[in-house]
Amino acid sequence: MARVLVVYASDYGNTKKAAEVVAEGAKSVEDTDVVVKAAEDVGEADMTSADAVIVGTPVHMGSPDWRIKKFIDTVCSALWLKDAMKGKVAAVFATGGGFGSAGGGVELTLLGLLNNFAELGMFIVPLPKSTPGYSKGGLQWGPYGRSANENGEPAGVPDDSLEAAKHHGKHVARAAALLREAKVFE
Amino acid sequence: MARVLVVYASDYGNTKKAAEVVAEGAKSVEDTDVVVKAAEDVGEADMTSADAVIVGTPVHMGSPDWRIKKFIDTVCSALWLKDAMKGKVAAVFATGGGFGSAGGGVELTLLGLLNNFAELGMFIVPLPKSTPGYSKGGLQWGPYGRSANENGEPAGVPDDSLEAAKHHGKHVARAAALLREAKVFE
Amino acid sequence: MARVLVVYASDYGNTKKAAEVVAEGAKSVEDTDVVVKAAEDVGEADMTSADAVIVGTPVHMGSPDWRIKKFIDTVCSALWLKDAMKGKVAAVFATGGGFGSAGGGVELTLLGLLNNFAELGMFIVPLPKSTPGYSKGGLQWGPYGRSANENGEPAGVPDDSLEAAKHHGKHVARAAALLREAKVFE
Amino acid sequence: MARVLVVYASDYGNTKKAAEVVAEGAKSVEDTDVVVKAAEDVGEADMTSADAVIVGTPVHMGSPDWRIKKFIDTVCSALWLKDAMKGKVAAVFATGGGFGSAGGGVELTLLGLLNNFAELGMFIVPLPKSTPGYSKGGLQWGPYGRSANENGEPAGVPDDSLEAAKHHGKHVARAAALLREAKVFE
Repeated sequence: MARVLVVYASDYGNTKKAAEVVAEGAKSVEDTDVVVKAAEDVGEADMTSADAVIVGTPVHMGSPDWRIKKFIDTVCSALWLKDAMKGKVAAVFATGGGFGSAGGGVELTLLGLLNNFAELGMFIVPLPKSTPGYSKGGLQWGPYGRSANENGEPAGVPDDSLEAAKHHGKHVARAAALLREAKVFE
Repeated sequence: MARVLVVYASDYGNTKKAAEVVAEGAKSVEDTDVVVKAAEDVGEADMTSADAVIVGTPVHMGSPDWRIKKFIDTVCSALWLKDAMKGKVAAVFATGGGFGSAGGGVELTLLGLLNNFAELGMFIVPLPKSTPGYSKGGLQWGPYGRSANENGEPAGVPDDSLEAAKHHGKHVARAAALLREAKVFE
Repeated sequence: MARVLVVYASDYGNTKKAAEVVAEGAKSVEDTDVVVKAAEDVGEADMTSADAVIVGTPVHMGSPDWRIKKFIDTVCSALWLKDAMKGKVAAVFATGGGFGSAGGGVELTLLGLLNNFAELGMFIVPLPKSTPGYSKGGLQWGPYGRSANENGEPAGVPDDSLEAAKHHGKHVARAAALLREAKVFE
Repeated sequence: MARVLVVYASDYGNTKKAAEVVAEGAKSVEDTDVVVKAAEDVGEADMTSADAVIVGTPVHMGSPDWRIKKFIDTVCSALWLKDAMKGKVAAVFATGGGFGSAGGGVELTLLGLLNNFAELGMFIVPLPKSTPGYSKGGLQWGPYGRSANENGEPAGVPDDSLEAAKHHGKHVARAAALLREAKVFE
């Protein structure tokens, strides 16, 4: 039984919605236990009992939401000291208004999250371009849902992004099952 | 008289087109001399005689074109050793197929170019969101022209990106005029 | 009279110390007014009344401290909507334990801060390699003080980093004086 | 039998040396076939016949060597179009003069390489901080050998970096064996 933890912060419900769909994808893989939690509710035990962690964030000024960052600074920093997460599986996703022609800072936002996972010594699962929904709902590091139109008005998370999110969850659950008892690192 | 150098690499003419429009914008500022060159034709003297350098690249797999990189590794590295560019002005732009929902890797591509300019000690001019054309043709670090549709078919550089590019050139020429004789760094 | 605002978060006093030295450098430039504030005390008026903003952060898991991020998500986001900071001057610095051989994630940490400043449309002042203190106390985007030794034990901010920090403050104050009344952007 | 391909570019032999040690580590894992090639000698068949690819580069102005970039723009771009690498394993390493206190731009250099691997849909193997050699020879994304002293004089690749490199190769070979026949992605 592989365990997948989905962590999110959400302002208007968009990232929460995406988190739920990521979780749904993970659950669709046999023998997978999935927990979804808001960042402020995640403790060290949630992390250490998981085989894979997927974090989703709104994009704020080209970096992750401060509540995600607080979770990283407190919970993840402590686990880093103990080498408690190495060899587990990690992945990311985001939503955001996306003003402009290129994701509104999402790429560096996701890399900020991934820097944390690399520090923790976790395998990173990207989003292959052949994933359903990618062409309108994803980038190389994970699903991205643009949740506002070009005038900045709310538009919800696009169906394509949710499609990519569902598959992303599925990919991570499969990878967790393969790697959960492996001894790759010393 | 401020001098602006526009450097580009181009596969299908898209980045070249954007470079020409950036140059046009720079030229529209009084007392500005503008030179446009392909990366392989740029030598150290082109760089040291410029007050501002604007580099544009196609996005290839989430980083700059190798011809731009060769220019950086050879010409820019040599200038770095001599501290020959510090205090000058720098800016960037890009075009690319942009498969997916977030610029196809353009953000890290532009940051790769900017890392070079920071190493050289140059002031960075970003692209404010109020710039005409931004909402469909730019991101925080510069104009971005998505040159393929969602099926990957060629679509040229969008007018909005060219509009943003023209203003970007104008911004840089103005900044160069202000900073060209300043002594900000030791 | 140019006004420089230095914003910081600090865990053990290291980033605070660096912030004070950055401020000291800025003050050494004639006709400069300098304010130093912890991130949680900075409001919109502090930002809009400044000609330049310098932000310093501890490095936590390869990205900025959550208190800096909260300041960005709330104060800076609101100013972004209003285009209230464009054309001002920005710069960054950091301290951190730096476990490993390459800054412990400082580079992406500083780029996370700079993404915010680019979104706000502010000019970026890097740290030229010829700056005193650079060879042991800086990187291309700003001063970096490694505040722990290779065993992770506290070591304070190195003198070289403080030397670089002082000059960084000076550079930014000079750039602010040059650009404060300029009309570079529309 | 898992196959590992190590790709490098080298100016003074430092990255080549590191590549050979990465390869040695990979070979130490039973049933692993390892090939080491300079970037200009790598073709599509080398890539598609590998289960894992590890790329190493010198750091030049904060991004990868242009010969690595040419390999990415030509060989990897073509494989991206065909979805030919997805589900394989990827990792990175670097060497460089490292002027300054934080790796001389190595972090963004490695992320530039990783953006390519993410686009290809490959699993990323980071370098956990508990890896032997890490405290003086690595960062979160891979081994880093600072090959010059603080005056910029050649110093070779430090033993700690080579120790980390050997283990990195071992980690990747183990991960490749686990994932090579898996069906994680559609």
